[in-house]
Amino acid sequence: LKLGIAGLGTVGGGLIEIIAKHGTKLAETSGRAIALTGVSARDKKRDRGAAIAKLASNPAIWHDDPVKLAQSKDIDVFVELMGGEGGAAKASVEAALAAKKHVVTANKALLAHHGMELAALAEKQGVSLNFEAAVAGGIPIIKTLRESLAGNAVSRIYGILNGTSNFILTRMQEEGQAYGVALAQAQKLGYAEADPTFDVGGFDAAHKLALLTSLAFGTRLAVKDVYVEGIDTVTAADIDAAKDLGYRLKLLGVAKRTARGIEQRVHPAFVPAHSAIAHVNGVTNCVAVNGDFVRDILLVGPGAGAGPTASSVMSDIVDIARGVRLPPFMRPAAKLEAYAGAAMDGHEGAYYVRLSVLDKPGAFASIATRMAEQGVSLESIVQRRPPEALPGIGAGRTPGAAVPVVMITHVTTEAAIRKALLAMEQDGKIGDKPKMIRIEQL
Amino acid sequence: LKLGIAGLGTVGGGLIEIIAKHGTKLAETSGRAIALTGVSARDKKRDRGAAIAKLASNPAIWHDDPVKLAQSKDIDVFVELMGGEGGAAKASVEAALAAKKHVVTANKALLAHHGMELAALAEKQGVSLNFEAAVAGGIPIIKTLRESLAGNAVSRIYGILNGTSNFILTRMQEEGQAYGVALAQAQKLGYAEADPTFDVGGFDAAHKLALLTSLAFGTRLAVKDVYVEGIDTVTAADIDAAKDLGYRLKLLGVAKRTARGIEQRVHPAFVPAHSAIAHVNGVTNCVAVNGDFVRDILLVGPGAGAGPTASSVMSDIVDIARGVRLPPFMRPAAKLEAYAGAAMDGHEGAYYVRLSVLDKPGAFASIATRMAEQGVSLESIVQRRPPEALPGIGAGRTPGAAVPVVMITHVTTEAAIRKALLAMEQDGKIGDKPKMIRIEQL
Repeated sequence: LKLGIAGLGTVGGGLIEIIAKHGTKLAETSGRAIALTGVSARDKKRDRGAAIAKLASNPAIWHDDPVKLAQSKDIDVFVELMGGEGGAAKASVEAALAAKKHVVTANKALLAHHGMELAALAEKQGVSLNFEAAVAGGIPIIKTLRESLAGNAVSRIYGILNGTSNFILTRMQEEGQAYGVALAQAQKLGYAEADPTFDVGGFDAAHKLALLTSLAFGTRLAVKDVYVEGIDTVTAADIDAAKDLGYRLKLLGVAKRTARGIEQRVHPAFVPAHSAIAHVNGVTNCVAVNGDFVRDILLVGPGAGAGPTASSVMSDIVDIARGVRLPPFMRPAAKLEAYAGAAMDGHEGAYYVRLSVLDKPGAFASIATRMAEQGVSLESIVQRRPPEALPGIGAGRTPGAAVPVVMITHVTTEAAIRKALLAMEQDGKIGDKPKMIRIEQL
Repeated sequence: LKLGIAGLGTVGGGLIEIIAKHGTKLAETSGRAIALTGVSARDKKRDRGAAIAKLASNPAIWHDDPVKLAQSKDIDVFVELMGGEGGAAKASVEAALAAKKHVVTANKALLAHHGMELAALAEKQGVSLNFEAAVAGGIPIIKTLRESLAGNAVSRIYGILNGTSNFILTRMQEEGQAYGVALAQAQKLGYAEADPTFDVGGFDAAHKLALLTSLAFGTRLAVKDVYVEGIDTVTAADIDAAKDLGYRLKLLGVAKRTARGIEQRVHPAFVPAHSAIAHVNGVTNCVAVNGDFVRDILLVGPGAGAGPTASSVMSDIVDIARGVRLPPFMRPAAKLEAYAGAAMDGHEGAYYVRLSVLDKPGAFASIATRMAEQGVSLESIVQRRPPEALPGIGAGRTPGAAVPVVMITHVTTEAAIRKALLAMEQDGKIGDKPKMIRIEQL
């Protein structure tokens, strides 16, 4: 089985290392020798270590143009590891499929935006389009959905899909760091980009979630329908409140079948402290699936990195070597159901609310009234002593100053909680903007 | 694809339910209609619900003899759900393979003891022998090892492989129940048999571990080499000590490559309280794998039950429908390496030790000396106040009575700790038998 790899960054390097280290075993377990017969990368001269330099200096293997590599008669499988929603990645994947080459890619952006057309093309050409590495790095969630859970109707799939964000939240939780400090640390360690928006804004998780949703529910991709909120507004106070109330704060991607349609959402969420997912820390990812027969399963593993991602790429290649041919999104693309999304306003769940209540007569009464008007009932209220206060209730308070108040609601709707918070703001009894975080029942 | 199911217990019933509920979807995603064309069970008349009664009363489908069903020209796949290491299960699986029928089974005892011969026969006949449901119920660990982790060398695989034992340990931990009380509750809820030895003695986990070991390391099955210790000697004091020291107590199955050979062991173990595996509670199972590229992945899910087990059986059937044909143990049986086991004496790890120290002059000195003689150094020592004592050090103690002492050692060997404990017993400075539990570094 002849491979052409486009993109020689960390994942490409990891893949070449796997072939070098486990080639013999792979030939034995997959029934075919796996050989690297073509490579392409943006910069031929970049220092990437001896093994890759040797490949790059071999004119029989090196291609300046990934599209030419994709069409080369010397390859059976085109491995796209360049990344990017369009551009060279899209052009070369299309060229490979058109030339009846199997494609393996780790490119979630490309798939989330163009997966339907690419899947249809792959099916028409009778070749594979595999993308285990596109979601949650080394975790075999694509295979699990496409194969292991075939006999289930999925009701919900959710997980920690962005390692950068989970690293930052873990640092805030374990070291008491402020968001900015934890982010700077993530950047220093190479877990976050100089512009971290794509990760901390939830967009990377949204791409991955869209792929999971399609596989889990047999629906067409709808990445634009994902409701997205990032972690950039999470504060140390929220992290502390989560702990106090028996929760942990995680950035979740959740896709759920409801009577109103499918919910796809990425946002910070409280999860019960005793749940396994609450203990998935650092850059680790996880995905949980609820199926009608299997009930609840949870997969945990590294969400990124050379080795784990290359391991998933290799599993896709081994499937091709073994002759496994499945439609990319499990059902043939033409048979995927239309996507019917549920509006976020109708989302049902419990909420954490943090208010800065002005210490004025009637402030609490007005807040309680606004909640009651929207039918929101409260499970708990905690008035936390301001940090500068001395022991003793009310000590250190300045009359008229704001007092932080934390509430957990019973199950209500997104529309109700939003209306209640808006009314409170308009009443002028609270300082700052109220903060609301969804609680995910596991 | 025509199925013959032998065994109409809970799993058989679950499988029939999946076919009834998701038959259309399965035909679409697997490319072939899946039909039930034969059934067999020990007792035709047992009440199993309307759907199964209808099948049993259809003479075109019902077979009194599972071997006849296995050989029937009306089936393509023989689904063995009877259980048992030999007997009808073995005879019918052999008959099915001889007749070139694919086989799907959930029978860990059969596979652990006869898997090598059955795999060789299946390969010779060119048919599948799939057993996803034989290990950890609904968790897709067989597929993960056989397919997703193909590009890895595994260094360790471990997990909570017996739901009954994990349920009992969880009750002891969360409700403070004694072992006997928790066991009785497990029996009442149907999680434990009247004779629970197979589960609580660690034998069920050993069968599953042997299958995982072979798949993870590419070695021949060696179930008899598994070192087995059950949970029947675990006390509330051990559970409490684990908590105090920052651990949780779990029954683990562990297979590990060491310089001395492969370790296969099932025993109660301390795992760090902050690890995800520490939060896998109740009848839930989990399996963790360390691979050289993927690093650490963890799969969590229901270890038994009609739905989850049937979900795994169905995934095996769907693979057959899709034309996926892999050697049962990933490599062809003839190419599996010989198994080279490491003696348990050489096991390296930290240990928890609980002693009942007689309150006599020199008792502590003699214990410390015995540890030092074997080169065992201590990380911590906790002398817990006897339950009847009043507050205050030493209060309530009767001179000469036994005082419970708990120790955590640094990494040492099994031989060293065993020799040290034996010497202490012989010194006569401790009451009762000393207790030792291994600590698993995660």
